[in-house]
Amino acid sequence: MENFIFKNATEIIFGKDTEDLVGSKVKEYSKSDKILFCYGGGSIKRSGLYDRVIKSLKENGIEFIELPGIKPNPRLGPVKEGIRLCRENNIKFVLSVGGGSSADTAKAIAVGVPYKGDVWDFYTGKAEVKEALPVGVVITLPATGTESSNSSVIMNEDGWFKKGLNTVLIRPAFSIMNPELTFTLPEYQTACGACDIMAHIMERYFTNVKHVDLTDRLCEAALRNVINNAPIVLKDPKNYDARAEIMWTGTIAHNDVLSTGRIGDWASHKIEHELSGETDIAHGAGLAIVFPAWMKYVYKHDINRFVQFAVRVWDVDLSYSSCEDIVLEGIRRMTAFFKSMGLPITLKEGSIGEDKIEEMANKCTDNGTKTVGQFVKLNKDDIVKILNLAR
Amino acid sequence: MENFIFKNATEIIFGKDTEDLVGSKVKEYSKSDKILFCYGGGSIKRSGLYDRVIKSLKENGIEFIELPGIKPNPRLGPVKEGIRLCRENNIKFVLSVGGGSSADTAKAIAVGVPYKGDVWDFYTGKAEVKEALPVGVVITLPATGTESSNSSVIMNEDGWFKKGLNTVLIRPAFSIMNPELTFTLPEYQTACGACDIMAHIMERYFTNVKHVDLTDRLCEAALRNVINNAPIVLKDPKNYDARAEIMWTGTIAHNDVLSTGRIGDWASHKIEHELSGETDIAHGAGLAIVFPAWMKYVYKHDINRFVQFAVRVWDVDLSYSSCEDIVLEGIRRMTAFFKSMGLPITLKEGSIGEDKIEEMANKCTDNGTKTVGQFVKLNKDDIVKILNLAR
Repeated sequence: MENFIFKNATEIIFGKDTEDLVGSKVKEYSKSDKILFCYGGGSIKRSGLYDRVIKSLKENGIEFIELPGIKPNPRLGPVKEGIRLCRENNIKFVLSVGGGSSADTAKAIAVGVPYKGDVWDFYTGKAEVKEALPVGVVITLPATGTESSNSSVIMNEDGWFKKGLNTVLIRPAFSIMNPELTFTLPEYQTACGACDIMAHIMERYFTNVKHVDLTDRLCEAALRNVINNAPIVLKDPKNYDARAEIMWTGTIAHNDVLSTGRIGDWASHKIEHELSGETDIAHGAGLAIVFPAWMKYVYKHDINRFVQFAVRVWDVDLSYSSCEDIVLEGIRRMTAFFKSMGLPITLKEGSIGEDKIEEMANKCTDNGTKTVGQFVKLNKDDIVKILNLAR
Repeated sequence: MENFIFKNATEIIFGKDTEDLVGSKVKEYSKSDKILFCYGGGSIKRSGLYDRVIKSLKENGIEFIELPGIKPNPRLGPVKEGIRLCRENNIKFVLSVGGGSSADTAKAIAVGVPYKGDVWDFYTGKAEVKEALPVGVVITLPATGTESSNSSVIMNEDGWFKKGLNTVLIRPAFSIMNPELTFTLPEYQTACGACDIMAHIMERYFTNVKHVDLTDRLCEAALRNVINNAPIVLKDPKNYDARAEIMWTGTIAHNDVLSTGRIGDWASHKIEHELSGETDIAHGAGLAIVFPAWMKYVYKHDINRFVQFAVRVWDVDLSYSSCEDIVLEGIRRMTAFFKSMGLPITLKEGSIGEDKIEEMANKCTDNGTKTVGQFVKLNKDDIVKILNLAR
């Protein structure tokens, strides 16, 4: 186990009707009476959530300026617009209501407001975050784990670069999570969310750090829970219990309890960012394409870890004739599981042309100058090979 | 799953040599330059930890007043002494270096200083905590989970009443955890700690709340990790990896991640408090006596949950002829595990006379006027029966 520091102070308010507490929570954490209120498309208006949030804010005397229209794979443009609005109105708190894109936008705004340079500097690594406004989140899509994570992922429209920022300063002050708000999610988004949650756990799971027994087991527990409950919610979208399991697992997957003392991989996420940067495919769908190919490419690096994964997570029997057969059966079952949820598992199924492989590998490695991943450090050629395995 | 609010802001600093950071962390979190420094007996002096802590405090310009000599099953007397010292010296921070007793004393002092009444009021439920000084912890005994829990347990010498206080206001600001500091723990204390950790998980596990799949699985993962690693540390006390596993599991067991959305039981803890109140037996040893008896007494209340426990935690095969046989085999394996660690599993082995049963049951239920436990609410007669099963 590696030495580690762990701190996650996000207050989670979980369960039925909890969105009615949004006004009182904003009041508790905001340093200004006026706040910025970010959200996505029309779904929160159609569902009535928008009205309930407004009511709660008004009851608590909170004024707000709206930043609507945040899109999936959130863009830098609205981030800059949000920063401008906060500065002009002396706003010291950003509220997001919606999915991960809206929350990631709120986080980007929160670090951008007190910073004199270009907020994109934080995403390219040019500058380090020193301070951030507090952010509050009402999450409606269990997937990104952004509700208590230290991450924000933003797409720069200028070149379609998708980059992630990690800093403890952007963990939300509070996150409100009502599984009922996920009842109306389309099947495809639900499946993408489940895959994203699994991917967050697997990025942590595949590590070169030895003796990480507890977090191994916690990861396996969380993965098994998604595998059990995702088919239930796909069949029965209003099943509160199964929705709650998926939603809470999505948070645990990415709140860093599962990565204590470990060094995660994150190559698959970085490769996927090129897929969704290139084609706007949903992040979770892109991960369903990348992860099986990545596994096939790297498993020989630590076959024991992949055997453990196959046996403990996918119930592969030890009686196979070789470790390699056990591993490949594990990967096969995972891929079949993604497919059973209606996700694409090849570039072709994701409508991503083979002709883009070279370009995506290039972008992912800054034109071949950098490697990605920790479990195995992958160069541009490796990524070309992985994407070819994903054809 | 029940609605829940979860917040745990304790900063964990985990790993080798982390105690050298104590001065800088106190500086970060303390509101006064002078602090109170609580510790137990001579072990931190013998090990050199005392000197390293003092050095780090001095390097960071922190003055301190010492409150040494905190005993296991910590008493109210030193708590009151600590409160007096803080008030007289305008101290706004309490540091504990040692095991759970020292930390629980520090927490009691932290709530007592700003309170005008008797600090014992918080433990009897007469008063509610409104504010507390920040507390920092260097933990040397993995057991109580106090390093990031909301609990403090104190014994009132006047009548030997042992009572617990739970409030989020006493979660430590930071906790420093170096598994190397546990290398010199005597075998018996190590075993007691492992049992206490398991008990914290089991108190959460046995719940009447339905559909708590994720936390069920996380609890099972944590229990299996103690079962795997405790025998290793007992055989090889300087095994860093196994010590680290036990230590970190002890925190996860009691930081409330595992109880999100659940209602725990806690009858066994309350019954055990009478055992250690009566005889000063180590808390973990008392739990090894109480838990098997409690399980035998209550398992029929939800036999499915006990089957799950036996199968998933103790690997009992489903081929037994009845659910009851599976459950009893699970309890048998747990009891054998406690015994294999050198713990007493009966009142007799714990040198607790049968003649005390009536008195302990009386005290535990405030003379028969209250019940204890949530999974099954137990009255005085139930507790007499459980203690008789534990003879």
